Order: sequence, then C-alpha cells, then structure tokens
Amino acid sequence: MDLDSLQTPLLVVDGPALDRNLATMAAVLPGERLRPHVKAHKTTALARRQEAVGHAGFTCATIREVEGMAAAGLGHDLLLANEVLHARRLGDVVDAGSRVTLAVDSEATVAAAADGGVKEVLVDVNVGLPRCGCSPEDAGRIADLARARGLEVRGVMGYEGQVTVLTDRDERAAAVEQAMTLLLQAAALVGGDVISAGATVSYDLNTWATEIQAGSYALMDTAFAPMAPFEQALSVVATVISVSSKFAVADCGLKSLGMDHGLPSIEGATVWLCSDEHITFAPAAGHPVAVGDRVAVRPAHVDPTVAYHERMHVVEDGQVVETWPVDLRGW
Amino acid sequence: MDLDSLQTPLLVVDGPALDRNLATMAAVLPGERLRPHVKAHKTTALARRQEAVGHAGFTCATIREVEGMAAAGLGHDLLLANEVLHARRLGDVVDAGSRVTLAVDSEATVAAAADGGVKEVLVDVNVGLPRCGCSPEDAGRIADLARARGLEVRGVMGYEGQVTVLTDRDERAAAVEQAMTLLLQAAALVGGDVISAGATVSYDLNTWATEIQAGSYALMDTAFAPMAPFEQALSVVATVISVSSKFAVADCGLKSLGMDHGLPSIEGATVWLCSDEHITFAPAAGHPVAVGDRVAVRPAHVDPTVAYHERMHVVEDGQVVETWPVDLRGW
Repeated sequence: MDLDSLQTPLLVVDGPALDRNLATMAAVLPGERLRPHVKAHKTTALARRQEAVGHAGFTCATIREVEGMAAAGLGHDLLLANEVLHARRLGDVVDAGSRVTLAVDSEATVAAAADGGVKEVLVDVNVGLPRCGCSPEDAGRIADLARARGLEVRGVMGYEGQVTVLTDRDERAAAVEQAMTLLLQAAALVGGDVISAGATVSYDLNTWATEIQAGSYALMDTAFAPMAPFEQALSVVATVISVSSKFAVADCGLKSLGMDHGLPSIEGATVWLCSDEHITFAPAAGHPVAVGDRVAVRPAHVDPTVAYHERMHVVEDGQVVETWPVDLRGW
Repeated sequence: MDLDSLQTPLLVVDGPALDRNLATMAAVLPGERLRPHVKAHKTTALARRQEAVGHAGFTCATIREVEGMAAAGLGHDLLLANEVLHARRLGDVVDAGSRVTLAVDSEATVAAAADGGVKEVLVDVNVGLPRCGCSPEDAGRIADLARARGLEVRGVMGYEGQVTVLTDRDERAAAVEQAMTLLLQAAALVGGDVISAGATVSYDLNTWATEIQAGSYALMDTAFAPMAPFEQALSVVATVISVSSKFAVADCGLKSLGMDHGLPSIEGATVWLCSDEHITFAPAAGHPVAVGDRVAVRPAHVDPTVAYHERMHVVEDGQVVETWPVDLRGW
C-alpha cells in the first residue's frame, strides 16, 4: 500500500532503519545482555522483531504492558521495572505461565508483590535519579523482607536516568560509573545474579550491569540522537493544510507528539509552535511547501509520542509493508 | 463504586464542578451563542451534557470527532474548525443525515470540501495567530470560489488564540477587539450569518462573534484558570508508590499528562519532574505522604491529557457515578 493513500497524521517507522538499529544494538549487547524496554514503542509486533535478533527477556513499565506481552507469547522473562501496589493482575499472568519479575523498594511494595501472587522480584535501588528505589544501604533489608515473604530475589536494578542530560560522552561515562558503584554496593547486600540498569544513552558505557534496559534505541528521537549511534526511525507524517507568506501549517500537533522534550523538528524548516492538531513551521529558503505536500515531523521524545497513536506503519521505499497496532497502551 | 477500588492512574472528573462550569457558561452564552469545542474532552457523553444545557451545535478538530459525534446522535450542527484535504468521510457523515460545516482557507481546501461531498463551509480567516486562515482581504475571493463550486457559505471563523497568553484582562480584551476587527472586515466580504470565534479565555470578552468555540471551560486546566471563572474539574489520580526523605513518587507521568504547558500541579506539594509513568514531587511541610496514598494531579493542559486516556470517571463524594469512554480519540 502506498503511504500517500492513508489519511494523516500517521505514525511511520522507517523499516530498514529500525532493522539497522536492532542489529547495531544486538551486536554490542547480544542476547541476555539487553532487556529491551517496551515502553518506548508499546507494540508487541516490534518486540517480536527484538526477540528475533536474540533478546528473549523484556522490560515493561506498566501492568498492561506485562499482560499484553504475555498474551502475545512474549512472556519468557518479563521485568516490570516499576513499583506496583496492587499486583493481582501480575499474579494472574504468572499463573497463566509467564515469568514476571517485579521491582520492589519498600515493605509495602514487597507485601503487594507477595499478596498479588508474584514469585520473583528485583530490589530497586536509587542510584541518583530522584525517582523510585531504596537507598543502597537499605537494599539488603528489602531483600530480607522479600525472602521472608517467600519471594525469590533475583538481584537489583537501578536506573541512572540522570545521565540522559549529559551530552558529553566522558561526563556521561563518569556519571554512569558513579551510579553503578552505588548499584554494586547494593548488589553485594542483596545477592542474586541480576544487575539490571541502563538506557540507550549508556548502552555501551555501562559495563557493570549484567543487562541493559534500553528502549529508545529501536526508534530513537531527536533528544537522544547526539548520544548514541542509532538512526531516527520514527516520524509523524502530516499534510500541509495551509500556507501563507511566512509560514505553513500541517495537520499534526499536541495530540500526536510527546512535547516534554520540546518542539519536534522538520528537515528544511523551523518549527514555531504546535497546537492540538496543528504544527506551524517556517520553511527554510529553497524549501518551499504547498498545500497537500507531506512533511515528516521528528518527535523530540518517542515514548509519549507513540502512546497517542493506535497503530504504526512500517514503511520501505514509500510503501507500507506492515501496519502494527500499538497494542500496549493504557494501564 | 468507590474510586479507591480502581487501579491508578485514573482520569477523574469532579461531577458537580463540571455541572457548575456548564451552568456558568450557559448563563452567559446560552443556546447557539456557544458552540462547545469537543476537542477539549473527546467524549460524547460529556457533549451530551453540554447539549442538555442548551448547546445543540458543536465544534470539532478532527474528522474522527465529527464521525463520532454524528454516530452518537449529536450531529445536529457540527463545525469542523480545521482544514481538510480529503473530505470524503465528512461527505459520508452528511449523506447519513448530519449537518457538517467545514473550514476552508484556500482553493485546495475549497476543492477538497466540494469533492468530498461537504455542502456547507465557513471561510477561515487568520486574525493574528500563526496558524490556518486566509488573510481578511482574501476572504471574499475564497467565498466566491466556494460558491462557484456549489458550496453554501455560512460565514466566517477566526480563532484569536494569540490572546491565551495575555493574563491581564484589559490587555486580553484589547487583543480580542483587534482580532475581531479583522474578522468583521472579512465577514463583510464573505456574507452569511455566522461569525464564529473565540475561546474559554475570551468567552465574555468577545462580543463580536455570533458564536464562541470554547472548549476548555468544561474541565479547565491550570494554564487557563487565572483567566476565567471556571473550576478545575479534571485531575489524574495517582498512587504514591515510593517515598524517600526529600521527595515522593506517584504512578502517573508523561503518558497520562499533556506537557506542552509545563509541569502539572499537586496541592500541598512541589512537582519536580515527570517521566513516562512517574511523577516526582516534594511534599510541603505539614503535608507528608505515605506509600499507598492517592494524590490528585492537575494537568497544565487538559486537551492533550484527555487524549491519552481510554475513559474518564465522573466522581461525586468519592464515588464513581459514571464512567465515560473517551470515544473521540484518534483521527
């Protein structure tokens, strides 16, 4: 099917670029060294491609993601890298035959895991990002609490998200090492053989974790692009609906683009603003646009962009070769 | 049903506050003086409440919104206040018995309306916001083109969105008058009896338009709150999943909150950051929180917040009295 025959806005994946990203990552972090994070794409069909290049375990951010991955037959080893207070739905996924490991960082979340029928946990450790995770010194106590409730403690996890703003590679490497020093301290107290951490921007810097939870690398976005060798494979294709002397307007906006990392980009143009269903941009000299033209809008942040769309179209040479439902949305 | 029995994050509407907002608006702009914009809530059940207080005509931003409103029996008089280049789906809605008026601002969009089977249009005029709309001087020519294609030209529309940043009421009033002077110039060239404009922040200032396209007033958000007397009726309810000495973390984030107007708010706390499924906040002195507590997160911008959710729960005294599907999402 010709991409131009579909009404915009359209979430479009450059199929060959996606495959190159998956291959690049699998070469550096093969098999269990990578636990791809599905929150970045929320699409079981894309997860299946990640499995096809060797990654059988996945990271999830929501209960719905765990349920959807299990239902799609991708439940070999799912980590919900997030605290949950009502885990019964996860217990149901375990009872149905999938492997689910849950992050815990407090007595309450240990109790929720045990009460909900989850069997395995990782102790989530705060390694510098102001988010979840116990202190490294407290990790042993949390592990003891979990074991006392009959839970298998597989190890530790800690997300060094504070490094995502350090565009200088040496600074980023130093910050990753500092964070992982904390995580290794916790791992010594906790036991188990899993040390789960990391992100696309630290995939080749974090040599301490046993597995890396990268997600953005598959589709990439403009914010992380300067920090990793992956190609931007995702765009929102929009149609120019109005043109005036100084600017043009296309039909995608705040409801098709994650905006927390700032404005999206259009090659050969300067983006001025977005409103609900519009993007206003000034074409650069020599790049005029006409009503009816299509433009590829590059989101600054992939994850919250994907979550707005019902489906993504995989495109090769202007042809839609597959259409994938974004089937892990919601909670 | 008790709201606390539902798993978070939850999109929650304060039912009595919503009803007060609808009543406040209907008192100032009764019946056809208001054409509520459904893009702000994307929910036909909420539109039905707006109809119940007297507003039979609605404004839409997408073809899907038009289709959904018509399918819900709310197609008495729908304005798609946006340019469209492939209007066949709108023609189908007209053929099925609903009234659909489409914005046009160029020869191409006039042709699309006629080719798609739309019968009625408004000439969209740029009144100062860098977005769609022809120049006021060009409006008569666009109307002539439309009439030559057999379209009924009902009048003009022009959105004075540039005034939404003017928190000073006098400045805002002056900017609305300036914008409407342009729209009236265009109206004189176009003919017809509709002059459609406006927004929640100009609902009582814009005395020139025959109808106001306000949307945010029903649910409101923190960005527009200082500029209009409507109550914030929408929140995202989240559960505290982790607490440390300086901050706490609850389970809603970038995928449940529109972020283009900045960070959301939590009463009695300072919000530090949001990530995909987390909000980190510092509770104020005297407002401690514990794991398992629930917090109401006020989005800075309602429209892109609602678009992330499958349903909204209408709550009164802590009880869910209705659950409404957000059934106008997508395109």
